[in-house]
Amino acid sequence: MTAPAIVGVIMGSKSDWDTMKLACEVLEELQIPYEKKVVSAHRTPDLMFQYAESAAERGLKVIIAGAGGAAHLPGMVAAKTILPVIGVPVKSSNLNGIDSLLSIVQMPGGIPVATVAIGNAGGTNAGLLAAQMIGAFDPAVQKRVQARRERIEREVLESSETL
Amino acid sequence: MTAPAIVGVIMGSKSDWDTMKLACEVLEELQIPYEKKVVSAHRTPDLMFQYAESAAERGLKVIIAGAGGAAHLPGMVAAKTILPVIGVPVKSSNLNGIDSLLSIVQMPGGIPVATVAIGNAGGTNAGLLAAQMIGAFDPAVQKRVQARRERIEREVLESSETL
Amino acid sequence: MTAPAIVGVIMGSKSDWDTMKLACEVLEELQIPYEKKVVSAHRTPDLMFQYAESAAERGLKVIIAGAGGAAHLPGMVAAKTILPVIGVPVKSSNLNGIDSLLSIVQMPGGIPVATVAIGNAGGTNAGLLAAQMIGAFDPAVQKRVQARRERIEREVLESSETL
Amino acid sequence: MTAPAIVGVIMGSKSDWDTMKLACEVLEELQIPYEKKVVSAHRTPDLMFQYAESAAERGLKVIIAGAGGAAHLPGMVAAKTILPVIGVPVKSSNLNGIDSLLSIVQMPGGIPVATVAIGNAGGTNAGLLAAQMIGAFDPAVQKRVQARRERIEREVLESSETL
Amino acid sequence: MTAPAIVGVIMGSKSDWDTMKLACEVLEELQIPYEKKVVSAHRTPDLMFQYAESAAERGLKVIIAGAGGAAHLPGMVAAKTILPVIGVPVKSSNLNGIDSLLSIVQMPGGIPVATVAIGNAGGTNAGLLAAQMIGAFDPAVQKRVQARRERIEREVLESSETL
Amino acid sequence: MTAPAIVGVIMGSKSDWDTMKLACEVLEELQIPYEKKVVSAHRTPDLMFQYAESAAERGLKVIIAGAGGAAHLPGMVAAKTILPVIGVPVKSSNLNGIDSLLSIVQMPGGIPVATVAIGNAGGTNAGLLAAQMIGAFDPAVQKRVQARRERIEREVLESSETL
Amino acid sequence: MTAPAIVGVIMGSKSDWDTMKLACEVLEELQIPYEKKVVSAHRTPDLMFQYAESAAERGLKVIIAGAGGAAHLPGMVAAKTILPVIGVPVKSSNLNGIDSLLSIVQMPGGIPVATVAIGNAGGTNAGLLAAQMIGAFDPAVQKRVQARRERIEREVLESSETL
Amino acid sequence: MTAPAIVGVIMGSKSDWDTMKLACEVLEELQIPYEKKVVSAHRTPDLMFQYAESAAERGLKVIIAGAGGAAHLPGMVAAKTILPVIGVPVKSSNLNGIDSLLSIVQMPGGIPVATVAIGNAGGTNAGLLAAQMIGAFDPAVQKRVQARRERIEREVLESSETL
Repeated sequence: MTAPAIVGVIMGSKSDWDTMKLACEVLEELQIPYEKKVVSAHRTPDLMFQYAESAAERGLKVIIAGAGGAAHLPGMVAAKTILPVIGVPVKSSNLNGIDSLLSIVQMPGGIPVATVAIGNAGGTNAGLLAAQMIGAFDPAVQKRVQARRERIEREVLESSETL
Repeated sequence: MTAPAIVGVIMGSKSDWDTMKLACEVLEELQIPYEKKVVSAHRTPDLMFQYAESAAERGLKVIIAGAGGAAHLPGMVAAKTILPVIGVPVKSSNLNGIDSLLSIVQMPGGIPVATVAIGNAGGTNAGLLAAQMIGAFDPAVQKRVQARRERIEREVLESSETL
Repeated sequence: MTAPAIVGVIMGSKSDWDTMKLACEVLEELQIPYEKKVVSAHRTPDLMFQYAESAAERGLKVIIAGAGGAAHLPGMVAAKTILPVIGVPVKSSNLNGIDSLLSIVQMPGGIPVATVAIGNAGGTNAGLLAAQMIGAFDPAVQKRVQARRERIEREVLESSETL
Repeated sequence: MTAPAIVGVIMGSKSDWDTMKLACEVLEELQIPYEKKVVSAHRTPDLMFQYAESAAERGLKVIIAGAGGAAHLPGMVAAKTILPVIGVPVKSSNLNGIDSLLSIVQMPGGIPVATVAIGNAGGTNAGLLAAQMIGAFDPAVQKRVQARRERIEREVLESSETL
Repeated sequence: MTAPAIVGVIMGSKSDWDTMKLACEVLEELQIPYEKKVVSAHRTPDLMFQYAESAAERGLKVIIAGAGGAAHLPGMVAAKTILPVIGVPVKSSNLNGIDSLLSIVQMPGGIPVATVAIGNAGGTNAGLLAAQMIGAFDPAVQKRVQARRERIEREVLESSETL
Repeated sequence: MTAPAIVGVIMGSKSDWDTMKLACEVLEELQIPYEKKVVSAHRTPDLMFQYAESAAERGLKVIIAGAGGAAHLPGMVAAKTILPVIGVPVKSSNLNGIDSLLSIVQMPGGIPVATVAIGNAGGTNAGLLAAQMIGAFDPAVQKRVQARRERIEREVLESSETL
Repeated sequence: MTAPAIVGVIMGSKSDWDTMKLACEVLEELQIPYEKKVVSAHRTPDLMFQYAESAAERGLKVIIAGAGGAAHLPGMVAAKTILPVIGVPVKSSNLNGIDSLLSIVQMPGGIPVATVAIGNAGGTNAGLLAAQMIGAFDPAVQKRVQARRERIEREVLESSETL
Repeated sequence: MTAPAIVGVIMGSKSDWDTMKLACEVLEELQIPYEKKVVSAHRTPDLMFQYAESAAERGLKVIIAGAGGAAHLPGMVAAKTILPVIGVPVKSSNLNGIDSLLSIVQMPGGIPVATVAIGNAGGTNAGLLAAQMIGAFDPAVQKRVQARRERIEREVLESSETL
C-alpha cells in the first residue's frame, strides 16, 4: 500500500486484532489506503496523544479505534483530534462487550465517537462506515461501497434457495 | 437557510424533537445547512424509503436519525442510502434508552450506523460528528469545530474557579 | 406442500435457520401450509417491503419473522402489512439475544409485533402461536394444537418416573 | 357493548388498568366486542383457571393479559386455553418492567405468549394485535385497522410541519 | 425412604434435575424424608394445582420448586398452598438464569416465594433452607444442619493449606 | 407485645424502615410476636454477630433482614445462625435495588438466604413468609394466614367491578 | 488550608461537584490537606495529562477522580501517574451510573483504579478510602478515621431506639 | 518470604485461587512481602473477623480480598479493619461476575472497598494497586512499579510490529 494512508486503524491491544483486521480487510477490498497500529490508552498514553494530535496533518480523514473493557481509546483519541473517530467495542472476556460499548458510546456532549456494534460485526462495519464517510466526498469510493452492497444483496437472495 | 442542505436531520416522532433540536442547534452554530423532518420507520415506512433513497442525489452528505424504543429508523435509513448515517438513541420512557441504544448500535455486518450517546449528549454530539465528517473535507467547517472546542475548553477551565 | 401457504416464515439471515426451522417443523406437524425465505431488512430492504406488502393478498394469514442483534425485520414487516407478525429474537453472538429481544418487542404504539422467547423456545413457539391464531378460526387446526398439547402433557408426566 | 365479547382483557391488579384501558380503547375504536376483568394469577388462581378454561367455548378468539413484576398471568392463562394469548408487561415500580417483560416473554417451548412492549405502548399494541389477528379472518375489522393506520400516517406527516 | 415425605421437591422439566438433585442430596444427607416429581406449570397446569392444593394435608411442611426461563412454577404453587415455597432459579440457556430469577423473586405482595441463588448453589441451598425451616421446630434436624456446617468450616480451613 | 418474640426483624439502616415496617405490620396483623432493631453489617459488625449468634437461644424461629446496595446483612446473619433468614432487598437510590437483590440472593452453596422481592412487596412478603414457615408447625398461625389470603382474594374479585 | 495538599480531588465537570464535595467534606473533617479542580478527560485532555504527570512530585499521595457516563478521567489519570487513583462513578442522567461504573472499574491488567460506589456513597467513601490509605502510614490520620467510625457506630445504635 | 507480610491476600474459596494468584505474582515480582489464606465470609465468619481485627497490628498495610457471587468478604473485612481493603470481583459461574462486582463495589457511605475489575484483570490490578498504595510512601516500591510500567509500555510498542 503505497498511497498515503487516509484511514488510521488503531487498537488498545494486540488481542483486539481478530476484530480489527475485519476493518482492515474491508478497507483493502475498497482500495482505501490505511495504516494500522497498537496504541494503548492506558499503557502507551503519550503515544496515543501524539498519534491523535498528528493524525489530521498527516493526512488521515478518519480514525478507527477498537478497545475492550473500560475502553478509553476511542474517546481519548477523539478528544485530541478534530477528525471523526469510529469506536469499535471489542468483546470483553467477562461482560461480553457491554462494558466496552458503554465506555465508548456514552461520551459527554462535546466529543462524539461514532460507535458501531460489539465485536466482529463492528469490526467490519467500522471499515464500511469509514468508507461511506469518505465516499460522501469521493465518488469512486462511494461507487465501490455501492457495488459491495449489491454483491451482498445477491448473496442473501441466493442463500434463500438453500434453506 | 438558503444554501442547499447537506445534512438531513430526521426523527421517528415529534416527541424526539427535544433531543434532536440539539443537533440542529450545533449545525446552525457551525453554519452547516441542514433540513429537518419527522420520518417514522413504522408509521411512514414509504416516506422513510423515499427519503433515504433520494438523500444522496439531493446533495446530502450525512443523515442524522433519532429514535427511541425499538428504534429502527437509523438502521433502515442506512440500509437504503450509501451516505453515512448517525443514529441518536432517544431516551425511552421505560428502559431509559438502553433499548434504543441496542436497537441502533447492534447492526449486522454490512450496514453500519454511527451511534452516539443516549439522549441529550447524543443529540449534541450527532451535530458535532456530522460537522467533523464534513470538516475532514472542508477546512472552513473544521476550523469552526476547532474554535468551538477551544471555547468549551476555556469554559471548563473557568468553571474550576467556582467550585 | 401444494396447498397455498397461509403462514410466511422469514428470517434475516441463513444463520437464523437453526432457530427458524423449529417453527417450520411445528407448522408441518400441524399440517399448516407455509412458505420460507431469507429476507434481510438491511441487506434486501426492497425485497422486504415487497414481501410484506403482498403478503395479505397472496393469502397469508400470519407472518413469522426471526432476526438477531439490531433485529429490525419483524417490526419493519409489521409496518408494511396488516397481518399479525410474530417476532422471534434469535440469540445473538455477543449479547445472548437481549438486543434482539428489545429491538423486536419494544415497538411504539401503533405497530405491534407478537414477540416470543429468545432462541429455540421462541422458534417452536412462533409456529405454535401462528397455529393458535389460525385455530381460533379453524376448528381442525385448533384440534391438532390441542392434541399436540395433550401428547406433551403425557410426556411430562412420564418423564417424572425416570428421575 | 351488546354483541358477545370476542376479546377478553384481563389484568393481575386494578393498578394495571391505566395501561390496560389503552387496549380497551383501541378495541372500542375498532368496534370489536370485548370484556374486561381483574384476574390475579397469585391471588385468585382458581378464577384464573376457570376464566382460561372457559374462554374458547364462551366465544372469545383472543385473550389480552397484563401483569407486572413476576408476571405469571399471561403464561398461566396460555397454559389453560387453546386461544392465542397476548401478554402486556406492565411497568413495575422498581425494575421498570424488565422483570415483567422477561416473566412474560421467556415462555418454554410448547406454550407461547404473544408479548408486546412494556407499558403504555404495549397496552395500545395489545388491542391492535388482537384486532389484526381477528382481521386476518374478518375483512371488516381488517379494513378498520387499515384506516386507523392511514389516519396515524397522516398525523405523523403533519407533525413534521410543526417542528 | 419409608417415612412420609415432609418436603416436596418439584421441577418444571426433567432437564432441571441436574440442579434439583443437589437439593435432594442435601435432604438425604440430613435424613429429611422427601418426595420428587416433574410438575410443569405450563404443560401440566392441572397436576400443579392438585399437587399444591393437597400438599399440606399430605403432610408436607415445605415445597422446593425449581424452574427456568419464565419460571412460573414456584409462584403458582405458592398461590395454591399455605406452605412456604422455596424457589430455585434454574440457569436458562440464553439469559443465564436472570430471567428465571426475576420471574421467581419479584412476586407481588401477598404471595411470597423464598428464592435462592441461580443454578447449582441454589439447588444445594434450597435443601439446606428447607432443613433450617424444619430445624427451627425440630432440634434433631437442626443439630444435623449444624454438624454439616462445622464440617464444611473445617474443610475451608484445610483448603487454605493447599494454596 | 409481651409474648417473647419469635421473629427478629432487623435492617441495615433506619432509612430501610419504610420497607421493613411492612413486614412488622403483617406480623402484628397475624399476631406473631416479633422484635425490631437497626443492625448494620458494616457499621455495627460486632452487634450483628452477637445478634445472630444469640438469636436461636433467645427463642427466635426466623430472622427477617433488610438491606440495600451491597447488602451483606442477610447473608452474614445467615452465616452466624442456624435459623432460616429471610432477606429483603431494599430499593437502592441508584440501581433500583438490583444490586441489593444480587447481593442477597446469590449466596454460595452452604449458607442460604430466603430472598423476597425488591422493595415494598418484599417487605410485606417477608412477614408473610415468616408466618408461613411458622404456620407449617403452628396451625393457629397457619389459619390466620389462610384467612388473610381469603380476604385479599375477595378484595381482588370486588376490585374488578370498579374498572 | 495552608499545609500542602496530599490528596487531589478532580472531576470531569462542575456538575459532578454535588457528589465530589462529599469527598472533600470527609477530607476536611479528617484534617487531610487536599486540592480540588475541574479536569475533563475529553474537554481539557492536556490539562489532565499535566495534572497527572506532576501529581507525585507536587507531593500528592492519592488522587480522587469522579466522572459520569463514558467516564475516562480516573483511568486516564491512573495511566499517567504512579499514585493510587480512586474513581468515583458519578450517577449519569440516563443509565443511573452503570455506564460510569463499568467505564471506571473494568480497567485492563496493568493500570488499576480503586473504584467506589456510584453516586453519593461513593463520594463519601472516596474521601474515607484516601484517608485509610494515608492512615496506613500515618497513625494520627488512622486514629481520626477510627474515631469517625466509632461515632457512626454509636449513631446507628441510637437510631434503633427511634424505629 | 521471610520479611513480615505487609499485604494480606485472602479469598472466599479455594476456587478463587486462579484469579487471586495473579495478585500474588505481582506482589512477588515487586518484592512486597505478603501472606495468603482462604477466609470465607459465610463458611468461616469468625476466622474472617479475627483476621480483619488483627490485620493492622500484625503489620499489614493493605488487604486484598477476592470473592464471587454474593461477595461479602471484602466489605465485611473492611468493616472490621481500619486498613484499606481492595476487593476483587471473581467471575461467577452464572452471572459472569456482575453479581460479584455489585456486591463488592456498592458499599454504603462509611466503609469503602477499593474495587478493581472482574476476574483476571482485577487479580493483577489488585496486586498493582496495593503496590501503588505502598509506593506512595515507599520510594523503592514506587520505583519498581514504575519500572514494570515502562517494561509493559515497551512490550505494547513492540507488539504493534507484529500485526
